[in-house]
Amino acid sequence: NSSGSGNELSLFNDGGGEGERLAAAKSIYMVSDGTGWTVEHSVTAALGQFEHCLVDRVCPINTHLFSGIDDVDRLMEVIAQAAKEGAMLVYTLADPSIAESARQACLLWGVTSLDVLSPITEAVASHLGVSPSGLPRWAPGRNSSLGEDYFRRIEAIEFTIKQDDGALPRNLHQADIVLTGVSRTGKTPLSIYLAQKGYRVANVPIVKNVDLPKTIFEVDPEKVFALTINPVALRSIRRARAKTLGLGDSVMNCNYSEMDYVKQELEFASKIFQQNPIWPVIEVTAKAIEETAAIVLRLYHDRKNRCSMPRISKRY
Amino acid sequence: NSSGSGNELSLFNDGGGEGERLAAAKSIYMVSDGTGWTVEHSVTAALGQFEHCLVDRVCPINTHLFSGIDDVDRLMEVIAQAAKEGAMLVYTLADPSIAESARQACLLWGVTSLDVLSPITEAVASHLGVSPSGLPRWAPGRNSSLGEDYFRRIEAIEFTIKQDDGALPRNLHQADIVLTGVSRTGKTPLSIYLAQKGYRVANVPIVKNVDLPKTIFEVDPEKVFALTINPVALRSIRRARAKTLGLGDSVMNCNYSEMDYVKQELEFASKIFQQNPIWPVIEVTAKAIEETAAIVLRLYHDRKNRCSMPRISKRY
Ligand SMILES: Nc1ncnc2c1ncn2[C@@H]1O[C@H](COP(=O)(O)O)[C@@H](O)[C@H]1O
Ligand SMILES: Nc1ncnc2c1ncn2[C@@H]1O[C@H](COP(=O)(O)O)[C@@H](O)[C@H]1O
Ligand SMILES: [Mg+2]
Ligand SMILES: [Mg+2]
Repeated sequence: NSSGSGNELSLFNDGGGEGERLAAAKSIYMVSDGTGWTVEHSVTAALGQFEHCLVDRVCPINTHLFSGIDDVDRLMEVIAQAAKEGAMLVYTLADPSIAESARQACLLWGVTSLDVLSPITEAVASHLGVSPSGLPRWAPGRNSSLGEDYFRRIEAIEFTIKQDDGALPRNLHQADIVLTGVSRTGKTPLSIYLAQKGYRVANVPIVKNVDLPKTIFEVDPEKVFALTINPVALRSIRRARAKTLGLGDSVMNCNYSEMDYVKQELEFASKIFQQNPIWPVIEVTAKAIEETAAIVLRLYHDRKNRCSMPRISKRY
Repeated sequence: NSSGSGNELSLFNDGGGEGERLAAAKSIYMVSDGTGWTVEHSVTAALGQFEHCLVDRVCPINTHLFSGIDDVDRLMEVIAQAAKEGAMLVYTLADPSIAESARQACLLWGVTSLDVLSPITEAVASHLGVSPSGLPRWAPGRNSSLGEDYFRRIEAIEFTIKQDDGALPRNLHQADIVLTGVSRTGKTPLSIYLAQKGYRVANVPIVKNVDLPKTIFEVDPEKVFALTINPVALRSIRRARAKTLGLGDSVMNCNYSEMDYVKQELEFASKIFQQNPIWPVIEVTAKAIEETAAIVLRLYHDRKNRCSMPRISKRY
């Protein structure tokens, strides 16, 4: 548990066993009348600005997510508890009067607080000249029909899972995006990340001295993206992987994670990429999946779009 | 394209073919020095407050995402374009002086603007008593080592994909969460959503008159979650599904999406759930995947936690 940017899903008791270390941790309470994913995402982005201090838990932080908080009584209980723990409160509450109650209770009880939803909702309202509904996600009055786009996204996930790891090379032409690269360049999690955004993704592994399925050369080359990685980083990821799988030394000493082999496999991949110069080669070393996803989608839409200013557009 | 909450990934030219309808659309420019996913997520949440008006495109909105904007020149180009299009600007820019430039340029050019990152970063800074780094995600100075937790999440995705659709019932004991329900209750996308959050998920389909694998009764029943759905909704999802698969009438008239069969299968499932009363039964009708995920995780953590006030906690 020495990594700063990592976090643990495992639960812990605030007063429990780990005593001193936890005593110093500052708490952030995150409250939503909905799922809480928006407030969680915003807090995570903000914590990116404190990585220098999160490393090695120099300034330890615990976040606590309270979702589905849609009545004032439960809200007040959470705020009272925040006051007791010396936590700050970050919230998304669609009903303006409930949001205002949160603000006032925090003021009264000396809890630092921030409303994540109201400012953006108000800005959009004034831009559109339309009043916000004030209805939370689960409000009884809401007509929450799931649109076509929603089912298309689910279909993209199902498609993507089926194509994983080069499973069905004959389906490559049905994909929006085809990823290729050697083992442990993150093809699978990247495919899934993109699929969640509604893209049908196939990935094709590159293995030293093994020919790629010929369909990858038959599809629109503008939809193929090549992944590459620094050999030292790749070796360490492969070693960690071998350990996780419990493969022990026998496999760790074998080709897969050996430096020579890693380098040769990357060179083999790199030759294929040179022969297909239209495929962008994306360097994934030390990049998080969502970062690589942003790069892939930027390129993908620029290619489709070719408008003066690169962008990813959606219509609501 | 009649659904209000849906959106399209397909690109379009702002001055192009669709003339009048698009002419009325208001634009939201979303700018980030990073991936842009944070600002996109916040805008999507805010748009939830305008569903009454997004339905049937009564107030059409186009969003445009500009990611990786990390120098002032490109930022100014985007803002100038926003001014030209009459768009508003929502942004996350880690460098406070660049964020300030954005604010001032928007003021000057009459562009409604909102800074999504600074308020939360400043609130966290004052809570911690630590200054934010001001470094964007891709800053050269940043030490962006991906922690253990990061690799654990990737591993969870890979585990989850392998277990999909009851593929490996002998592995159920390795899962953190086991989902069960009839076909088209969203087990697969829900599993993937939870996997992205770091949970190892397995799902077990229920098919009328087919026994569940006995391992599901051997694992800790507190980690099993049952999904159910309204029969009318299920039938329409199954019909749409049959169409997507291009199965046509022959299959649509067969059991899978026929009302009697749908009801009998749901009753079969419901009997199993009654025999296992410890499994929470979650109603997924008209719920988005992320909504069901929030419910599953709330229950999951409440069961693990059993502290006075339900919450999902993480340590940074
Ligand atoms: N589709 C929606 N309709 C209405 N409100 C929404 C919608 N999506 C999100 N919200 C609101 O936006 C905030 C963030 O949502 P969540 O990410 O679910 O916590 C909450 O206050 C929700 O009630
Ligand atoms: N790990 C991180 N380190 C530094 N800044 C980050 C990190 N993650 C996100 N940010 C910043 O938070 C904002 C939102 O990030 P993104 O969601 O990538 O657009 C951007 O200004 C990023 O530069
Ligand atoms: Mg939220
Ligand atoms: Mg952003």
